[in-house]
Amino acid sequence: MKPIHLHDDRLFPVDEKTRGIARALYQSVRNLPIISPHGHTDPRWFAYDNNFGNATELLIIPDHYVFRMLYSQGISLESLGIPRWDGGSTESDPEKIWRIFADNYHLFAATPSRLWLDTVFKQVFGLSDMLCADNAMAYYKHITSELAKPTYKPRALMNRFNIELIATTEGALDPLTHHAEIQGTEWEKRVITTFRPDDVIDASREDFKQNVVKLGELTQQDTQSWQGYLTALRQRREVFRRHGATATDHGHPTAATANLTVSECEKLFDKCISGQSTEQEQELFRAQMLTEMAGMSIEDGMVMQIHPGSFRNHNASLFNKFGRDKGADIPQQTDYVNALKPLLDKYGSDPKLNIILFTLDETVYARELAPLAGHYPSLKLGPAWWFHDSPEGMLRFRHQVTETAGFFNTVGFNDDTRAFLSIPARHDVARRIDCRYLASLVCEHRLSENEATDLAQDLTYNLAKKAYKLEGY
Amino acid sequence: MKPIHLHDDRLFPVDEKTRGIARALYQSVRNLPIISPHGHTDPRWFAYDNNFGNATELLIIPDHYVFRMLYSQGISLESLGIPRWDGGSTESDPEKIWRIFADNYHLFAATPSRLWLDTVFKQVFGLSDMLCADNAMAYYKHITSELAKPTYKPRALMNRFNIELIATTEGALDPLTHHAEIQGTEWEKRVITTFRPDDVIDASREDFKQNVVKLGELTQQDTQSWQGYLTALRQRREVFRRHGATATDHGHPTAATANLTVSECEKLFDKCISGQSTEQEQELFRAQMLTEMAGMSIEDGMVMQIHPGSFRNHNASLFNKFGRDKGADIPQQTDYVNALKPLLDKYGSDPKLNIILFTLDETVYARELAPLAGHYPSLKLGPAWWFHDSPEGMLRFRHQVTETAGFFNTVGFNDDTRAFLSIPARHDVARRIDCRYLASLVCEHRLSENEATDLAQDLTYNLAKKAYKLEGY
Amino acid sequence: MKPIHLHDDRLFPVDEKTRGIARALYQSVRNLPIISPHGHTDPRWFAYDNNFGNATELLIIPDHYVFRMLYSQGISLESLGIPRWDGGSTESDPEKIWRIFADNYHLFAATPSRLWLDTVFKQVFGLSDMLCADNAMAYYKHITSELAKPTYKPRALMNRFNIELIATTEGALDPLTHHAEIQGTEWEKRVITTFRPDDVIDASREDFKQNVVKLGELTQQDTQSWQGYLTALRQRREVFRRHGATATDHGHPTAATANLTVSECEKLFDKCISGQSTEQEQELFRAQMLTEMAGMSIEDGMVMQIHPGSFRNHNASLFNKFGRDKGADIPQQTDYVNALKPLLDKYGSDPKLNIILFTLDETVYARELAPLAGHYPSLKLGPAWWFHDSPEGMLRFRHQVTETAGFFNTVGFNDDTRAFLSIPARHDVARRIDCRYLASLVCEHRLSENEATDLAQDLTYNLAKKAYKLEGY
Repeated sequence: MKPIHLHDDRLFPVDEKTRGIARALYQSVRNLPIISPHGHTDPRWFAYDNNFGNATELLIIPDHYVFRMLYSQGISLESLGIPRWDGGSTESDPEKIWRIFADNYHLFAATPSRLWLDTVFKQVFGLSDMLCADNAMAYYKHITSELAKPTYKPRALMNRFNIELIATTEGALDPLTHHAEIQGTEWEKRVITTFRPDDVIDASREDFKQNVVKLGELTQQDTQSWQGYLTALRQRREVFRRHGATATDHGHPTAATANLTVSECEKLFDKCISGQSTEQEQELFRAQMLTEMAGMSIEDGMVMQIHPGSFRNHNASLFNKFGRDKGADIPQQTDYVNALKPLLDKYGSDPKLNIILFTLDETVYARELAPLAGHYPSLKLGPAWWFHDSPEGMLRFRHQVTETAGFFNTVGFNDDTRAFLSIPARHDVARRIDCRYLASLVCEHRLSENEATDLAQDLTYNLAKKAYKLEGY
Repeated sequence: MKPIHLHDDRLFPVDEKTRGIARALYQSVRNLPIISPHGHTDPRWFAYDNNFGNATELLIIPDHYVFRMLYSQGISLESLGIPRWDGGSTESDPEKIWRIFADNYHLFAATPSRLWLDTVFKQVFGLSDMLCADNAMAYYKHITSELAKPTYKPRALMNRFNIELIATTEGALDPLTHHAEIQGTEWEKRVITTFRPDDVIDASREDFKQNVVKLGELTQQDTQSWQGYLTALRQRREVFRRHGATATDHGHPTAATANLTVSECEKLFDKCISGQSTEQEQELFRAQMLTEMAGMSIEDGMVMQIHPGSFRNHNASLFNKFGRDKGADIPQQTDYVNALKPLLDKYGSDPKLNIILFTLDETVYARELAPLAGHYPSLKLGPAWWFHDSPEGMLRFRHQVTETAGFFNTVGFNDDTRAFLSIPARHDVARRIDCRYLASLVCEHRLSENEATDLAQDLTYNLAKKAYKLEGY
Repeated sequence: MKPIHLHDDRLFPVDEKTRGIARALYQSVRNLPIISPHGHTDPRWFAYDNNFGNATELLIIPDHYVFRMLYSQGISLESLGIPRWDGGSTESDPEKIWRIFADNYHLFAATPSRLWLDTVFKQVFGLSDMLCADNAMAYYKHITSELAKPTYKPRALMNRFNIELIATTEGALDPLTHHAEIQGTEWEKRVITTFRPDDVIDASREDFKQNVVKLGELTQQDTQSWQGYLTALRQRREVFRRHGATATDHGHPTAATANLTVSECEKLFDKCISGQSTEQEQELFRAQMLTEMAGMSIEDGMVMQIHPGSFRNHNASLFNKFGRDKGADIPQQTDYVNALKPLLDKYGSDPKLNIILFTLDETVYARELAPLAGHYPSLKLGPAWWFHDSPEGMLRFRHQVTETAGFFNTVGFNDDTRAFLSIPARHDVARRIDCRYLASLVCEHRLSENEATDLAQDLTYNLAKKAYKLEGY
């Protein structure tokens, strides 16, 4: 068996001088509290503080980074116990599933998943040999028995992980029951929600029509009319804000925005809720709704996150069996410069508007996003995201963005994960890479070491708090 | 207060061996004269040699790199004294403006502006503390008083900066009065013009129709007919050549070219000067005119520069108040391989044609531009430009272009700036980065040190003189 | 005269620690046999084992990397002896041509051609001075006289180069006479063919109609009907398999695929063979045929290589004189995520399907290809190719692909060349760069040295054998 390879200097540049500075910068930020303003953890964990289940249930089944790689090498999702929405059968023995994972752990060499998992195994569970076929069951048992201890309950881990604040993400129709449970407790300021209204905005969804009806029931508004629909959304935003939300999140296929007249909006809305809309109309409706959301953000102060560019559920046969979010989302080319113009023409100069842009298309970093964020006061850039939430991805982000947008048009790191145990590992990668980048600037005499030290703090902590308006938290 | 951080080894790689070679190469070119074959300085400066005004007027108000960054952080252009074309009020106290700039100087950390400005402050004005809130007024006064000295007059600075030749850029209707002033003096060979006919070619401009009328008045040609219009352009090109121009410059939104029949051209031209043309017709007219300009370049030997890919004046409300060139130009995806084909089909194999291509879309470096320039004798590649005129941008250019196009299909550096004082700093960055790149090739044994030394001279001086046909100058 | 600069440590990183590890990894793979599963060498060489001709005929005339660079600097293809298909005259004195090449050898500085050529000159021919004007004729004579020796015959070189297996590429109509010659000899397992049916699939070709007729004659099938045409293709695939082929190769302009009904296919096919098809119909036919080929691959087990993204014969006047493959192929933007969906919807989950994707558009590495290959079991990624078969190109490939696709969704290196003598040089570059990349991962503590050693073997040898199903060879 081989040891887990988790060197103190991992991800730092090899040159000793740069590495020394990177290490010093990292020492100054490694223990700062974690701000996690965008993610997908389950609020039930923090509301009820029950222990997690077994290793497989926590570390494999919900992690699409893990099972997509296994699937790409011919391992079926059925054999990995991924739940099916068509009701078909799937493996139910967590030990069998864990064994498959262990047997194939070599596939993850040089991927961020490997880095995160090794960090979890070693730092969260105290394991020291690398996962392999031989120790698979010992691993499984150790992790599963640790998870049963009080020190592995969600709130205990929040403290151990030094997570100052975590935001979850809920759909517009979510009753926020679990967040309500937290209200009034000492956790209220540490676990907040985020308003993600895609389910009531994206008319291409099979459940859109029905979701708009539910929105009406929930808000007692006539959501069959354009004005009633908007009022209902305003009301949900307010409810979310009362449960701590400072931000909205919009995961559209493209960054398209529109600026239609009210009567055009009314007609388009009618078409969409009729269930008879074309793909073009659905796209236009999403586009118009981004502009509407920007208008509401100006009213209520919520920060708007726009995450376009994913071709969702690309694998049709997998989607039919397993449903959404099963690793078959593929990035595609994404335009921002034309797409955002209608929204920016209407609201881009309003000092009360705050938009954070993300991308899965790295070609826009230097070409579109840095110039846009380096000009518009309403635009800032979210961190390297999803497939690019990786050492190389983060480096490309800094290298391609900084010269035009500077550091202060960026918003720090966010982990965007449902893999709670990996949150410290993910923030640690970001801290290491940012320090590495700053150290290179210092060694190339493009920045003084003093400035780099201040910037390391900003990138790790200050910018996230400010950009997501968490300063009162 | 902190010192200005301007290390002798700035921008060199950290590795000592590579740095040593980079340093040696740089020593061999650092004092070569500057050839500036493409830029936007004001010919009046060189014609009349008057002193510049105050620090704010020279260093902030004309520099869109500077005020776009300030604007992106919520500082209004009004407060920065940017002149408005709607006649609205704007700050007129240069000291107040300078103070805002100084208070926000940290925003420029790790940007090329910071590098250029620090170099100007230290090397041109002898300042040694970094600009900050505390020394803002001392800075302002020092710079402003220096600017009043004879040694800071434009021609004195031309000599101090070792600028052998500088090209300005004038529209087709420009009377070239200031260049005429220089004709017959010893400065005639050092300050030349460039023919930029966008104002009489781009039918989407609000002043296009009127510009074509003026073109007729200026040339005594019937510019309401296609043939008269072409003759007028030929005539203006000749006038520009008599004022030193060796090149034309074309800043179209795209690189589209066309190859229409004469009768199609006539119809399209009529439509465009009627003021009734559609966007598609305007695009097609620009496309056809690039091909016409190529034809005239073959006749008169002028080098043709094509700079596509900017979405001009993206911020509508800012444009309405402040007009063009206010930092709201955003690059967009740019195709060359299809766009240039009509022109290349017609003229691409003519040994008398010389086109220099620029891009704001780095994705085309390796994919389209290097393969095109590495094949067509008529095509060469301009340097990393505008947002990419930066250490990282220049490195990406060399890394992505050299393996396919080699060095001899590139044309050296040009500064493309109206910020006269920053010209030495900009060329210095290019020299350092080119030497750094060459040094890496040497250390990886991909080039001998002798070859690198020759190439450093070529990239710094020879290629620009040759590509812009400045050898007789 | 300067020595050929071919350092033992070429292409390794300059940092001593990383270089040391790169060197050790490279030592472990440098002498592994060469697997060349995709290329364009002439099967006659291996079938009849005759000596090659002179230096010019072998090293310049067939190498479009070489003559495209010379052409880009104004040297006509006529003067380089490139054969014309319009029957026009062209230089026939090989010494004159060689002299031009030698005079301009400096143009290749820092290109992969220079690296390959220097390696051939030194390691294959024992030359030690770099090619230049002064030694041009000595070079020519030395190379030409060496080529006449028995030790320079193709089979002797196959052994000397340690090429375990080489695949050539033949069109669907090729009689495979030369491969038949090899059948039953000890070379049968070392020289195999590849099925490239573009000539009978691409209806935009001037010879398409006639090729489909020939296909019918060759197979005794009614290729004027859709079903007969498909049967004929199946039959040709079988013949190719009997001549060793394990793979097909598809060089379409785009990666478009389609999934039409049988009756739509029939209509489209009729239109295409009528010679009356539009460009759109030709594109749709190619798209449908990729899906058909995938279906046949599932039946017969052949690995499918898809190489899209080249705008062929971009230079019209050159094409008219010299025909195809004369260096005027320019990459263009290429979509995969939408283009491949119809094929993947139909066959993507079939465990028997094996597709290897290549690209000339590097922007898709991280955005589309790595996510696709990191998900679909049927997809793997071919190496950096053509313009990107270079040190920088290979590094970009690894840096942008590995974090999402891992190593095991890639297929090792292939040289894709008709320049037989350069094959060892090309594989050597790939081995050096892969070892360099792995060494960096080790030094940044992202991989253990043990893992890197195993991976170096995989990337050099195992993955290619497995991906191309050469394990029985």
